[in-house]
Amino acid sequence: MERHFDEELKNLSESLLKMGILAEKAINYSIKALVERKMELAETVIKSDNVINMLEIEIDDFCHMLLALRQPAAIDLRFITAAMKINNDLERIGDQAVNIAECALEIIKEPLLKPLIDIPQMATLAKKMIKDSIDALVNKDEALARDICKRDDKVDDLNDQIFRELLTYMMQDPKTITRAVELILVGRHLERIADHATNISEEVIYFLSGKTIMHHMEDKKQP
Amino acid sequence: MERHFDEELKNLSESLLKMGILAEKAINYSIKALVERKMELAETVIKSDNVINMLEIEIDDFCHMLLALRQPAAIDLRFITAAMKINNDLERIGDQAVNIAECALEIIKEPLLKPLIDIPQMATLAKKMIKDSIDALVNKDEALARDICKRDDKVDDLNDQIFRELLTYMMQDPKTITRAVELILVGRHLERIADHATNISEEVIYFLSGKTIMHHMEDKKQP
Repeated sequence: MERHFDEELKNLSESLLKMGILAEKAINYSIKALVERKMELAETVIKSDNVINMLEIEIDDFCHMLLALRQPAAIDLRFITAAMKINNDLERIGDQAVNIAECALEIIKEPLLKPLIDIPQMATLAKKMIKDSIDALVNKDEALARDICKRDDKVDDLNDQIFRELLTYMMQDPKTITRAVELILVGRHLERIADHATNISEEVIYFLSGKTIMHHMEDKKQP
Repeated sequence: MERHFDEELKNLSESLLKMGILAEKAINYSIKALVERKMELAETVIKSDNVINMLEIEIDDFCHMLLALRQPAAIDLRFITAAMKINNDLERIGDQAVNIAECALEIIKEPLLKPLIDIPQMATLAKKMIKDSIDALVNKDEALARDICKRDDKVDDLNDQIFRELLTYMMQDPKTITRAVELILVGRHLERIADHATNISEEVIYFLSGKTIMHHMEDKKQP
């Protein structure tokens, strides 16, 4: 049974990896829809969200089964509870990608406001944070997880920059308002995605070390 | 030990109730800061978020302890995993209240854009959803939890209405842009709070019935 349980934990890891890939793909497509002005790509993201939702339920059920039947302790228990939370974060990343796709559909209706540079850059940073956070989980790499938490500030800075720039556009030309507001919302959604990736990294650190670093607990404990 | 465990589960319920009250209070204060233009109230919300964050960690640790030492099964196991997720939703509601408080600080800097009616109404609906979802948990009231899930649409409708109205303001007078964008963001934060209350209700239904209704699973299973 010990060996069977190891196999089950490996399956759980692989399912989260799959979920992470789906979430990354959803962001990819939603940003591509926005940048290349492709409605059908945005619609694909919206339609495919169901696949992520179903996988979330499957993983959640599997975690419940493991808790009930294997009665895990210590690091195995922490792995399963971390998996439940990470699963939830990945599903919400999928929701944010849907939100971006919906904004894209509105933005595409009107002419191009400006070449999009900062938003794709934010998306690239956010996607890398997701990929690395799942890699940190699978490879039990605490240093990588800690590094990801530090990257969140860069995404926030980019978002602030986008926000200020778009305010200027709106003030100069009221015709840009609808598109600019939608782009501001895209920035917010990407910021939320990076927050979820940070949550995932914090979960990985808790799983590996048993230490909570949510809400910068460690910083606060310093003298 | 059976009795001791019952006592522990009751303590867990009470901690979530406390967390719910703190989250509601944070929304209350952030909206009051906005409506009554009181900077110090907004600052109180931002400063007090730490209390919610610390309580989240405490509850999470307690749940881990229960899973490790009591090895619960069936409905007790579902209660504890639901508690972990609800705890997380409540903490994120606290974060959204901080976001609203930050918007309020920006909005208060400038003259009143318009009397605020829809936003306080949205806040009242969202707060009621949180209160009722925790009541549904504590009183094991599945019907109430199902009712809450239905209310989410009303909050979304109000948010759309606020969004469209504020776009009109901006187009008529570019001087209103900064305030209007901040108010749009307040609407989004309240919408997210209602989403979290819906998540909590879904968790309550799962705990009580063992059935997942996330992502309208039940609807989809209908022929």
